Amino acid sequence: MDIGMIGLGRMGGNMAERLRRAGHHVVGFDPSPKAREAWTGRDGEAVASLDALVGQLPSPRAVWMMVPAGEITGKTVAALKSLLGRGDVLVDGGNAHYKDTLQRAAELQGAGIHYVDCGTSGGVWGLAEGYSMMVGGDSGAIERLRPIFEALAPAPDKGWGRVGEVGSGHFTKMVHNGIEYGLMQAYAEGFSVLRHKQEFNLDLHQVAEIWREGSVVRSWLLDLTADALKKNPSMDGIAPYVADSGEGRWTVAEAIDLNVAAPVISLALIERLRSRDTDSFSDKLLAAMRNQFGGHAVKSE
Amino acid sequence: MDIGMIGLGRMGGNMAERLRRAGHHVVGFDPSPKAREAWTGRDGEAVASLDALVGQLPSPRAVWMMVPAGEITGKTVAALKSLLGRGDVLVDGGNAHYKDTLQRAAELQGAGIHYVDCGTSGGVWGLAEGYSMMVGGDSGAIERLRPIFEALAPAPDKGWGRVGEVGSGHFTKMVHNGIEYGLMQAYAEGFSVLRHKQEFNLDLHQVAEIWREGSVVRSWLLDLTADALKKNPSMDGIAPYVADSGEGRWTVAEAIDLNVAAPVISLALIERLRSRDTDSFSDKLLAAMRNQFGGHAVKSE
Amino acid sequence: MDIGMIGLGRMGGNMAERLRRAGHHVVGFDPSPKAREAWTGRDGEAVASLDALVGQLPSPRAVWMMVPAGEITGKTVAALKSLLGRGDVLVDGGNAHYKDTLQRAAELQGAGIHYVDCGTSGGVWGLAEGYSMMVGGDSGAIERLRPIFEALAPAPDKGWGRVGEVGSGHFTKMVHNGIEYGLMQAYAEGFSVLRHKQEFNLDLHQVAEIWREGSVVRSWLLDLTADALKKNPSMDGIAPYVADSGEGRWTVAEAIDLNVAAPVISLALIERLRSRDTDSFSDKLLAAMRNQFGGHAVKSE
Amino acid sequence: MDIGMIGLGRMGGNMAERLRRAGHHVVGFDPSPKAREAWTGRDGEAVASLDALVGQLPSPRAVWMMVPAGEITGKTVAALKSLLGRGDVLVDGGNAHYKDTLQRAAELQGAGIHYVDCGTSGGVWGLAEGYSMMVGGDSGAIERLRPIFEALAPAPDKGWGRVGEVGSGHFTKMVHNGIEYGLMQAYAEGFSVLRHKQEFNLDLHQVAEIWREGSVVRSWLLDLTADALKKNPSMDGIAPYVADSGEGRWTVAEAIDLNVAAPVISLALIERLRSRDTDSFSDKLLAAMRNQFGGHAVKSE
Repeated sequence: MDIGMIGLGRMGGNMAERLRRAGHHVVGFDPSPKAREAWTGRDGEAVASLDALVGQLPSPRAVWMMVPAGEITGKTVAALKSLLGRGDVLVDGGNAHYKDTLQRAAELQGAGIHYVDCGTSGGVWGLAEGYSMMVGGDSGAIERLRPIFEALAPAPDKGWGRVGEVGSGHFTKMVHNGIEYGLMQAYAEGFSVLRHKQEFNLDLHQVAEIWREGSVVRSWLLDLTADALKKNPSMDGIAPYVADSGEGRWTVAEAIDLNVAAPVISLALIERLRSRDTDSFSDKLLAAMRNQFGGHAVKSE
Repeated sequence: MDIGMIGLGRMGGNMAERLRRAGHHVVGFDPSPKAREAWTGRDGEAVASLDALVGQLPSPRAVWMMVPAGEITGKTVAALKSLLGRGDVLVDGGNAHYKDTLQRAAELQGAGIHYVDCGTSGGVWGLAEGYSMMVGGDSGAIERLRPIFEALAPAPDKGWGRVGEVGSGHFTKMVHNGIEYGLMQAYAEGFSVLRHKQEFNLDLHQVAEIWREGSVVRSWLLDLTADALKKNPSMDGIAPYVADSGEGRWTVAEAIDLNVAAPVISLALIERLRSRDTDSFSDKLLAAMRNQFGGHAVKSE
Repeated sequence: MDIGMIGLGRMGGNMAERLRRAGHHVVGFDPSPKAREAWTGRDGEAVASLDALVGQLPSPRAVWMMVPAGEITGKTVAALKSLLGRGDVLVDGGNAHYKDTLQRAAELQGAGIHYVDCGTSGGVWGLAEGYSMMVGGDSGAIERLRPIFEALAPAPDKGWGRVGEVGSGHFTKMVHNGIEYGLMQAYAEGFSVLRHKQEFNLDLHQVAEIWREGSVVRSWLLDLTADALKKNPSMDGIAPYVADSGEGRWTVAEAIDLNVAAPVISLALIERLRSRDTDSFSDKLLAAMRNQFGGHAVKSE
Repeated sequence: MDIGMIGLGRMGGNMAERLRRAGHHVVGFDPSPKAREAWTGRDGEAVASLDALVGQLPSPRAVWMMVPAGEITGKTVAALKSLLGRGDVLVDGGNAHYKDTLQRAAELQGAGIHYVDCGTSGGVWGLAEGYSMMVGGDSGAIERLRPIFEALAPAPDKGWGRVGEVGSGHFTKMVHNGIEYGLMQAYAEGFSVLRHKQEFNLDLHQVAEIWREGSVVRSWLLDLTADALKKNPSMDGIAPYVADSGEGRWTVAEAIDLNVAAPVISLALIERLRSRDTDSFSDKLLAAMRNQFGGHAVKSE
């Protein structure tokens, strides 16, 4: 079927390509000429404006947004509100906060435009392996885009589904990422314990490979960890600095709002914050307090 | 090859069976007549004493222990010390603390007996899917048992390996289980957040199935979680009581000994302890303190 | 000086009384006739409407609000906006979120009314011991109310101060309460460890009394804890249920916003949430997962 | 009364001095000539060997050990075992693990020597303000030393007490220190949040001073924190490196042994470990994992 893809970066470009390979007609747009060129270099069809994109699509239109959450998503939705028409479907495949999604859906509803939120997981591997998609929104609209979801998914009937009304897709993806933080931190701590047990001189890559087969902790993240440890077993040259892209924070906030105890997800986030603070004021103050009551020497900077 | 299997319970019985199916000659022993009968019912050969077991095996002997860690393992090793002889290999496939393992290995070394520690993961699924095995000990002894490890593993060259000197196998398995606690807790928290978001009325089993394909959080534990949620989506009739079998505690203690920060693994353990304390003294005292300073009412029991 | 006190409950009534005893003329208002009667029973002067309260005060007026944060504070401010006039000072002594305070201050500024936020600590003990007050807002307005702050504080020059522009008082009080959560939880955990060490049969009240003098952990919270343990050493009849009044949550959210790692304050909050969930879905799911992979029995409800 | 003081360092020297000022006859010993000179410089009486110390004391003797926990305490006890006699009392005022204390007491009991464990809090302030002492051991022996405890305490009947049989004193002190870790971390986190809220430009020393009077979080640790913030509000020149002296670790281990959930004390310890790891392998691995699945750039060292 025909679909517009807004955003041809790392995620959007690969998704457009997976759809193209499945025989769909994808009209791509990205404000960056470089991203558009990358897409035309893959034999894709690109346009230079949202206006042109909408013009190239037959009614009722299907448009997929794959742009950064936040301001850019907001502006794109605002622009499309006047370009799209009754019966068109706009999918937000990015990582918007579900509360923003609810608000955007309400705004588009007045114009008769269906807003569908699709939490998308799979990262750079999605092109080859397919994407996992948690979809929220109107059943009819989602059903109409079934061929798109089936092409993007690992298999037509696997790895995707409508999980509920609009907002539920991004909500579910948010929690998915919260879990991801916890899983990653658990592996990282375990491998760190192994590494620090110098007397056993363990080969962390070998251990990861052993665990990949038959163990209770086998997972796709472990597969990736094994790859990372193979390439660079001592993590040489990598700074101990862990970024976060927002969804972990939202999960922690949501858990608190819902009165759900989520200590591990919370700590996984907090440890990321900690990793970026190489000059911790708390720790300096703790050192000063120990000096105050016990006369313990402080270490100088 | 010929091998003795001590312990024919849930783990040992299945391992003996997997070896038998691979064509090995397994002499089984278990103090429980019922366990022995279960094994002979599977066409296995059982004996009623350690003495008899050792007597049935050609020299140099290979014996695999699959008994509960702690006192029973200690007594079994003590008994075998006088029954086995120079060049024999004794494998401990259980979850002993690596420090106990180091001590036992030292005791057997005097008698020329090789002690091999094999951290074994895979649970009740190992019979069908194979076991993940982290093996520590003398290279020659482990090499001699290669056919055994290859038969127990998911594939001859996958899911097992010698990770180092004796003790390193159980150490690695201990950390494996620590990671497992963290992974489990992360999933449990995430699904709990999803469940408490009543306005989206999410189908947790469906979400788990979607995540199983293509997502970053896909794993074997997620596969099992999906099964559990399919059978019992509301967890009806299951008490919120989470046991622990020791290795999580040891991982936390080891991390602290090694000065490694392991907040997530530690919290995953602590939450298990918390789950079993339905009459928390801390929480009562907190309620009493709030009453003291703020006049906040306490809830009566 | 003359001052209006809006809210004559547990906090407001005691503050009005402390001001009255110091010789100030306090006009009190509370929507509840019972609260007004309690105040007149203390020889206080009460009025039955905001209108009347404002009418009783000489210009420029000083009004102190001591009402629940949230909706009630918002409505009271809205009502006072049209009753107060240029140069009047309105103090919010409650636990409003500092962002709400910023917004309210901006609204009143247009009408020339000074909004002062006073984070107030001291609980039911404040009447006798004085209140600790973190004050934000216009320097001149705060200076004009100096006699009020000096009377409420433990001593004229102690326990209070202008900490910055409007909003900073409530912000500082919010963090104060976050710290309080951490302190309380640390004591509660420690006493719980002592209690569970049955072989030493410790007298927790005695231990608290010993610590009150000369130890590093002495504090006012410990004084209160000692009292609570004296009255009820086993916490009999008290449910292990710990409420929270919002400021802990805000502190956790703010720490995350500021990229500050606050693991202890966060966990202290999470443990309160946990205390109220006697039917934890996470824990049920963990039990079910253990059953899935290891065949470990689940406990029935 | 007559008492021997073994160890004339920061703690022991001050305690000997406080006893001397109270009119007791203190014979001091320290292996370091410098420490002995410091003591004689305070008009104290010093001897150069344990032998001499025991020789100077009338029977039944009272000896107080104030030496580092661990090996030195063990060696000192071993040496005194043959020097002291039936009816003598040996006090360990240091921070020994209570399990070591139990073992030492058992060894001395055979020789009729009373072993008393005194958990001592108060740090460098104890000389002026008195020490908080949690005492375990034989009632008669402790009663005989009452004048000593009364002199060391903040007041004769305050800040000290026999809490139970031998071992209970050190156990109680261990938990005291665990609580201390939690309290310190709570304050440190709170002040860090305040500091990072740059828009309010708070004066942390001022805030601490306000809180010292009338607030719920007032405490002796806060008094010290206020001092530290007065001297050095930005903690300039202090490395964010927080040592630990063992008792926090033991408290965490004991809580786990007793199945008591102690998340805040545990996290306070873990944060100290984290403060010392400026090259976290976990965090490097997390950065590498993010790169693997999402193509997120890693920061170079």
